[in-house]
Amino acid sequence: MSSPSLPRIEINIDCAESFGHWSCGPSDELLMPMIDVANVACGGHAGDPVIMRRTIAAAKKHGIKVGAHPGFPDKVGFGRRLLVMTPEQAYAEVLYQVGALKVFLDEAGLPLNHIKPHGMWYILMQTDEAFNDATMRAIKHFNVPLYGLPNTLHQTGAAKHGIPFIPEAFVDLNYSNAGHLLGVAQSNPMTPEYIYGVTKKLGTTGVLPSVTGEELDIGVKGGPFSVCIHSDFEKCVENLKAARRAVDEVNAELYTGR
Amino acid sequence: MSSPSLPRIEINIDCAESFGHWSCGPSDELLMPMIDVANVACGGHAGDPVIMRRTIAAAKKHGIKVGAHPGFPDKVGFGRRLLVMTPEQAYAEVLYQVGALKVFLDEAGLPLNHIKPHGMWYILMQTDEAFNDATMRAIKHFNVPLYGLPNTLHQTGAAKHGIPFIPEAFVDLNYSNAGHLLGVAQSNPMTPEYIYGVTKKLGTTGVLPSVTGEELDIGVKGGPFSVCIHSDFEKCVENLKAARRAVDEVNAELYTGR
Amino acid sequence: MSSPSLPRIEINIDCAESFGHWSCGPSDELLMPMIDVANVACGGHAGDPVIMRRTIAAAKKHGIKVGAHPGFPDKVGFGRRLLVMTPEQAYAEVLYQVGALKVFLDEAGLPLNHIKPHGMWYILMQTDEAFNDATMRAIKHFNVPLYGLPNTLHQTGAAKHGIPFIPEAFVDLNYSNAGHLLGVAQSNPMTPEYIYGVTKKLGTTGVLPSVTGEELDIGVKGGPFSVCIHSDFEKCVENLKAARRAVDEVNAELYTGR
Amino acid sequence: MSSPSLPRIEINIDCAESFGHWSCGPSDELLMPMIDVANVACGGHAGDPVIMRRTIAAAKKHGIKVGAHPGFPDKVGFGRRLLVMTPEQAYAEVLYQVGALKVFLDEAGLPLNHIKPHGMWYILMQTDEAFNDATMRAIKHFNVPLYGLPNTLHQTGAAKHGIPFIPEAFVDLNYSNAGHLLGVAQSNPMTPEYIYGVTKKLGTTGVLPSVTGEELDIGVKGGPFSVCIHSDFEKCVENLKAARRAVDEVNAELYTGR
Repeated sequence: MSSPSLPRIEINIDCAESFGHWSCGPSDELLMPMIDVANVACGGHAGDPVIMRRTIAAAKKHGIKVGAHPGFPDKVGFGRRLLVMTPEQAYAEVLYQVGALKVFLDEAGLPLNHIKPHGMWYILMQTDEAFNDATMRAIKHFNVPLYGLPNTLHQTGAAKHGIPFIPEAFVDLNYSNAGHLLGVAQSNPMTPEYIYGVTKKLGTTGVLPSVTGEELDIGVKGGPFSVCIHSDFEKCVENLKAARRAVDEVNAELYTGR
Repeated sequence: MSSPSLPRIEINIDCAESFGHWSCGPSDELLMPMIDVANVACGGHAGDPVIMRRTIAAAKKHGIKVGAHPGFPDKVGFGRRLLVMTPEQAYAEVLYQVGALKVFLDEAGLPLNHIKPHGMWYILMQTDEAFNDATMRAIKHFNVPLYGLPNTLHQTGAAKHGIPFIPEAFVDLNYSNAGHLLGVAQSNPMTPEYIYGVTKKLGTTGVLPSVTGEELDIGVKGGPFSVCIHSDFEKCVENLKAARRAVDEVNAELYTGR
Repeated sequence: MSSPSLPRIEINIDCAESFGHWSCGPSDELLMPMIDVANVACGGHAGDPVIMRRTIAAAKKHGIKVGAHPGFPDKVGFGRRLLVMTPEQAYAEVLYQVGALKVFLDEAGLPLNHIKPHGMWYILMQTDEAFNDATMRAIKHFNVPLYGLPNTLHQTGAAKHGIPFIPEAFVDLNYSNAGHLLGVAQSNPMTPEYIYGVTKKLGTTGVLPSVTGEELDIGVKGGPFSVCIHSDFEKCVENLKAARRAVDEVNAELYTGR
Repeated sequence: MSSPSLPRIEINIDCAESFGHWSCGPSDELLMPMIDVANVACGGHAGDPVIMRRTIAAAKKHGIKVGAHPGFPDKVGFGRRLLVMTPEQAYAEVLYQVGALKVFLDEAGLPLNHIKPHGMWYILMQTDEAFNDATMRAIKHFNVPLYGLPNTLHQTGAAKHGIPFIPEAFVDLNYSNAGHLLGVAQSNPMTPEYIYGVTKKLGTTGVLPSVTGEELDIGVKGGPFSVCIHSDFEKCVENLKAARRAVDEVNAELYTGR
């Protein structure tokens, strides 16, 4: 679906977030034809060895790039609760989880595309410098880009450690006027049509409407970026179709013929 | 401690079998000066990311070779209870655990020396062909030898899959007259002096006394092999010293000048 | 829905088999209006403290009786894989899980109605006498009936320990001609209409068709029993509606006016 | 060892903090003859069903009172890492853990003496009002006293909920001049003789020396209280002997003949 030689806008979603008998969101088979990049859970907040391996096989079949999606080792909390770790623990945890994932990629003959921490790990990296630093040192070991929020410690931490940074934008949640990503409870309800419009506008102009409708530059202007769609939202499939349509149109307009 | 160009007898023990706050047996610092090879737990039956990483740092410091020691993901049972897995589960579990360990070896600049499954996994591989096969396919992926019991499915399974096989001998437990390794309850109590004598005899002649005192060929005659000492036995340190002395004497007699 | 003073046929299903973020089968709110008895998971194979507590609140609201549904402490395997425990471990595990459930019942002012082990625990009790005995001793502590299969060690073990026994029948799986309950793979596909018919016949005559269509007496003839419907089958809701209709009709015919 | 009809000073320690194969600190058999009260782990931060049951059997044999010692469900962190829970989660977690413990007490014919949360749970209750409140509501359900630190939210929270409060004092750690209990790193090294002296002074006068040697009233003056000794400190046994001697002397002086 993607042409690797050209910079372009892409779509990433979280995958392999099932656990044993339990599934999470729509199946990979349904979502994978519509995405470019999968963030695969690594057995910390979700996923188990069989699920990880099957997800990577599905990604290979659909030509999807695979990144690691490590999270707090707290399945009851789905990696969304703060668990205070020492830097040594945080560093070793990322190595462990991503190392486990990498062997399934090796088996499938796929490269590790990137690392994108999950849930509260992703959030904590924006405010806790020691935690951010421990995570960055672990990412550095794998020599792949970090997916994260521009204009936050995600970007500056990556720069400090010489880690390539792929900015991502969320179009199924709102941002505050100050540019902070908001949670579900703080965001407005969104229709797929709205998501289509926001994605299209963001891709062509680099700005999107804040939660109160103001024009907001979220830091992706002028370059390729990744759009993240939540795979566990109720309207996930509709949202993804809408974003896909917008991204395809923008890519066709901006990058065709280059 | 070992000269890699010459075949010789070596000693391996299980390491990193602590978990979080809890420790298991004597510390690595005490045991590592006396061994050649460490089987490092991978977070299944024991071990966690911090413990694994610290153990590998200690192994590097002491010049010890490191193998992976995967086990059933059952910490309460310490990997010593049977947990019935499908071949797909068993295969993916070994990949996951060994993959996680390997990243800490990569970080330390050490190679993966071998794989030796733990406890009930090691035992089940001797009788369950489908389980043995799944495990062998996973080991094959890492392209390293299996440590196991000669004259069992350990050896024949490895041969079938083209996996190098390092035979190991236990000198702190007994074997039945039929050559089967016995558990603690079925073995005679042993003094360190007895262990010294058995190891010396095994190294020079390839036979040892069975549980009833008969001469037993356990399949290591005429070639190098690995002696396993249990790191969780009460007299572990004394047993290890005794075996070390015997192994050093045998190596000096047999291999010096070759 | 049930009149406690009269013996009658009832319907039980497994509940609280979600875990953290992950759900399992239709919601309690959908199923509870159609059942008499809920087997509530206890945090072993499924369930967590919040889910257990919410399930019991829902059961109270709908006037459903609540039993404990302990299982092997193996969430990845959903309690459906054999984990070999000592009798001491099995005994203590049942006490632990049912004890934890009981406190939520105490809080809600509900009694513990029964105990029905889950999955492989339920199956193993039919063949392993020491395991059966350990489980029975644990059930005995709580002084409630066991739900189980008549004509198996479920019934004879309960009798031996002086534990009341409620026979249950499965109408969404088949039995072999020898009267053994079969798994999904061995059973014929069933429509809700078929389930209605089987349940009606079983309730009125005490026999049902085996997997090859022979008349089979499964040991519930002449007395009240419990019909179990699988809450994780795809057609769960339709199956439950069909069984409910049959059970209501049989109860009305047999027990009205008594 | 204690005369239940008279108020007196007692000693409590944490027990059952082993896990599966792994043990923690000296064995119960060694410590129990020297204590009055055991805080028994409940399978959250430590303990498993078999260990809990065996610990309670040992407590019964030695005539020790048993309280519940619930903690964060984080074995790797031994309940010493903050895990952010909702009040609903915290409330249900305490019910679950204490409920599981209670069934083993019922089996042994022992009452639940008290509840004393472990590690970070105990600490967090001193600063987080919503968390304190959720915990108190759970304790209230069991109708037993809370063991905690006087002059903190432990005491005021218990009072607010009508829960009896037993003040406890730590004599193997220091307090700041402001009366806050300090951690190991902030405390001075202590000899058993020092612990004897501090305990004696505290028992007779109600004050002890702060970390800088100032006289400090920690809120136990004029009434019975419980002395906590850490069972996982290296000199645990010597510390316990010293505190026991002091407590016995004070009890003999103050309470004999009353």
